Amino acid sequence: MKVPSYVGSMAGKDFLNTNDFSQEEIAKVLKAADDLRASFRKRTPTPYLPGRTLFMLFYNRSLRTRNSFEAGIYQLGGHAHFLSPSDVYTPSLPEDMVPYQTEAIADVGRVLSRYGDAAKWTIGRGHRVIQEFAKWSDIPVLNMEDDIYHPFQALADMKAIVDVAPKPKGKKFVVSYAYSGGLKPLAVPQNCAMIGTQFGMEVVLAHPKGFELEDSVIEMCKKNADRYGGSFEVSNDMKEAFQGADFVYPKAWSPKNFMPPYSDKVNKDAASEYQNKFQDWKCTQELMDVTHKGKYMHCGPADRGQEVTDEVIDNPRYSLYFEQAENRLHVQKAVMAMVMGSKRRR
Amino acid sequence: MKVPSYVGSMAGKDFLNTNDFSQEEIAKVLKAADDLRASFRKRTPTPYLPGRTLFMLFYNRSLRTRNSFEAGIYQLGGHAHFLSPSDVYTPSLPEDMVPYQTEAIADVGRVLSRYGDAAKWTIGRGHRVIQEFAKWSDIPVLNMEDDIYHPFQALADMKAIVDVAPKPKGKKFVVSYAYSGGLKPLAVPQNCAMIGTQFGMEVVLAHPKGFELEDSVIEMCKKNADRYGGSFEVSNDMKEAFQGADFVYPKAWSPKNFMPPYSDKVNKDAASEYQNKFQDWKCTQELMDVTHKGKYMHCGPADRGQEVTDEVIDNPRYSLYFEQAENRLHVQKAVMAMVMGSKRRR
Amino acid sequence: MKVPSYVGSMAGKDFLNTNDFSQEEIAKVLKAADDLRASFRKRTPTPYLPGRTLFMLFYNRSLRTRNSFEAGIYQLGGHAHFLSPSDVYTPSLPEDMVPYQTEAIADVGRVLSRYGDAAKWTIGRGHRVIQEFAKWSDIPVLNMEDDIYHPFQALADMKAIVDVAPKPKGKKFVVSYAYSGGLKPLAVPQNCAMIGTQFGMEVVLAHPKGFELEDSVIEMCKKNADRYGGSFEVSNDMKEAFQGADFVYPKAWSPKNFMPPYSDKVNKDAASEYQNKFQDWKCTQELMDVTHKGKYMHCGPADRGQEVTDEVIDNPRYSLYFEQAENRLHVQKAVMAMVMGSKRRR
Repeated sequence: MKVPSYVGSMAGKDFLNTNDFSQEEIAKVLKAADDLRASFRKRTPTPYLPGRTLFMLFYNRSLRTRNSFEAGIYQLGGHAHFLSPSDVYTPSLPEDMVPYQTEAIADVGRVLSRYGDAAKWTIGRGHRVIQEFAKWSDIPVLNMEDDIYHPFQALADMKAIVDVAPKPKGKKFVVSYAYSGGLKPLAVPQNCAMIGTQFGMEVVLAHPKGFELEDSVIEMCKKNADRYGGSFEVSNDMKEAFQGADFVYPKAWSPKNFMPPYSDKVNKDAASEYQNKFQDWKCTQELMDVTHKGKYMHCGPADRGQEVTDEVIDNPRYSLYFEQAENRLHVQKAVMAMVMGSKRRR
Repeated sequence: MKVPSYVGSMAGKDFLNTNDFSQEEIAKVLKAADDLRASFRKRTPTPYLPGRTLFMLFYNRSLRTRNSFEAGIYQLGGHAHFLSPSDVYTPSLPEDMVPYQTEAIADVGRVLSRYGDAAKWTIGRGHRVIQEFAKWSDIPVLNMEDDIYHPFQALADMKAIVDVAPKPKGKKFVVSYAYSGGLKPLAVPQNCAMIGTQFGMEVVLAHPKGFELEDSVIEMCKKNADRYGGSFEVSNDMKEAFQGADFVYPKAWSPKNFMPPYSDKVNKDAASEYQNKFQDWKCTQELMDVTHKGKYMHCGPADRGQEVTDEVIDNPRYSLYFEQAENRLHVQKAVMAMVMGSKRRR
Repeated sequence: MKVPSYVGSMAGKDFLNTNDFSQEEIAKVLKAADDLRASFRKRTPTPYLPGRTLFMLFYNRSLRTRNSFEAGIYQLGGHAHFLSPSDVYTPSLPEDMVPYQTEAIADVGRVLSRYGDAAKWTIGRGHRVIQEFAKWSDIPVLNMEDDIYHPFQALADMKAIVDVAPKPKGKKFVVSYAYSGGLKPLAVPQNCAMIGTQFGMEVVLAHPKGFELEDSVIEMCKKNADRYGGSFEVSNDMKEAFQGADFVYPKAWSPKNFMPPYSDKVNKDAASEYQNKFQDWKCTQELMDVTHKGKYMHCGPADRGQEVTDEVIDNPRYSLYFEQAENRLHVQKAVMAMVMGSKRRR
């Protein structure tokens, strides 16, 4: 078997955030994903990580993330352990420790480092938690989603974009709020805006007042636009933003001022009440018609009838919805092959 | 390695119900199961599905189903993902959607179709749910048990029968109610009666009044009897039914008139109260004595002391209990090899 | 591939308790663990159990146990099923049966014996439960921890000891109570004292009054001391016990008189109140200073700040904490290779 040169090319590195890497490095990941996807479709085996164990630590429910990582490491010849919160003592930061319910991340990280020769992940909690894992683990740590970033989703999204537009520079990419009855996290829109600007796209972030993204993310998007020759703008008008767009990404997230550090405490009722004013932020056929043959994108699961109409999401002319989900598998395999692989073996 | 001709012989087909197939097709499944069981016992490897991923979606607890599928796909060289309800957003029909708690089956089916090159299953909910999965999935859908059918249990049962009676036609097969303190589903007795008639057996369905099976199932049993030259009768007397039986399958199920659509709402207390009148429907030594050297069958788990005495279930002269459980592994491997395999590979 | 001679050397045996084996047999396990650890570190594959399935039945949460067994069987070429209590009907003793919630261990054991050609485990319940499993299963049963014993932890601990002191006979080994806010089980200190005496060490058991271990365990420790030429003493003074120690194992367990059979019912509040008097039983630098260059040991997870100071547990000069966790993987692989392997294959 010929092992591709990308296997082991970032051996031992953590993957916590796309913005920690250069555009060139991310492009290499996407190219590796393309190679792995082609092999998968031809049913060519890709056992580049034989005997490697991946620990997946979840704090949340997940369909795409869990199944795409578990299938992915298996397709690479390795094996995943699925660790749900109810199966282990909750890995916690020092200030959150409770005897017999939690275990220090410092200890979990070091123990698992000795069982696997692979990587591990966490999801849905603070970026601080994942940094703590990375600090204490000898093996690569991959971020499956935290409160700020969702790097593998962003990679899958960018892969879907370059499949349509091999040179995304200058294309208009609208990351927009869309209404849902649930209170959703900010990681996806934040990381989308970041990776769009990292590839020199004309990124427009559209949302009602009160749905601002994190300041630090906005800063990074602006720096990316400067560095990579694109642009970054904020709009409070969905339809205006959609005008002439090549790609639109309408997706719910939570309004800002109802949870710490922006308010004293979490106030879900007030957040829902505020959010309910924006039920007209919905991706419809009418909105798609003002784009420039725009493609519809969503990380899934989409709330049908709220964020988007069936007419849009199920139209293969517009919708990249299932392509994005499919790409998760292959971009994750690409990063695993790059960071968990070893150049010298085989 | 020589790959048997049954591998891939039904490539891409769903397996939702035994009655969707002809007697001849089911007989081929049983023959493939025999081959796989023989290999397993000799420890001959059977890696006919290398690199294939199976998604197992459960709505209920399970010992035999989960472990026999997971071990089975591994013995075929593939890999299973065990997805419990607490690990994913609940795959739901359009009318049951709740933002952030459920995900449309249409979406789950299409996403998983892109991660696995294999199959997936569901259990314990309406046949409509599994038909919805089959509609939206590009990969084979296998029914691990729904509210009407339990096709793999029926295959395992028929395999146990043909091991004892290679020509089951004309043998007397009694599918009987037996008392349990719990309210059990109807899928097993329904599918047993169906597969028995599908093989031309003299099937007697025995139960107290009020424990009638679904009309549609009774219809199918009668049609099977006509088509395959056996008979189908209903009795309300357990002992009379057992007279001269070759195989008896005494097992609890729930009385009919205490849940929708047969009553306004689920009334568990009234159902239990009604059921408690039939504690004498128990499989005892005395009953076994009136059979024609009859074999005792049960899908497991049997409620010892209620449905059956230890004396009967633990007597290897009578009891096929552990053979039935064992056969689950091999009939499932047979169907997986047939629908997930590909004729052209290797 | 050359298969080491220890593979299959105890084929078919259960592993319920270290004391069921002789010192010589345990020493062979530790030697096999050493070989497997060396291969793991060199990344030499060790597929000694191809196609073997391991069923892991848990009653409790677990990080080390679950992950080290699952990674271990995979590193040996086999496959594990992780069965959590919520996924199956609870395997129960005859007197604990509840229809539709439990299943007889007699039945679970016999069913799983037909699906796997491997082994299975249980944890956190009575030793009687695991003996019931062993009685009914045709395949080896391994004890992952019960109310009295934790044999694989004891093996990992002894492996850590012989790595430091290849001839442990005559070394002073202090198994000591240490304070935690949680009520912890007795299996680890009991099994530590037993394996220490089994290797001829000078074992001192230190605890406040009211924290006595099981009488049967004390008896076995005394017999071990006689048979293997070491000693066994009990002390109620932590500092005195630590004097000149080569190895110290300070760890919380629960006071004796607040649960059956020592009291009418479980009285957690009274147990916690009593335990809270002993917060000065903490492993500190000051205590380590009175040992004879003593090594600090703990099975994990340690309650930092209660049982031990960070200063001690994180000091690689003292602490064997991560080595012990690492050894779990390899001693378990050793026993699996010995009991699940077959001499004649390959």
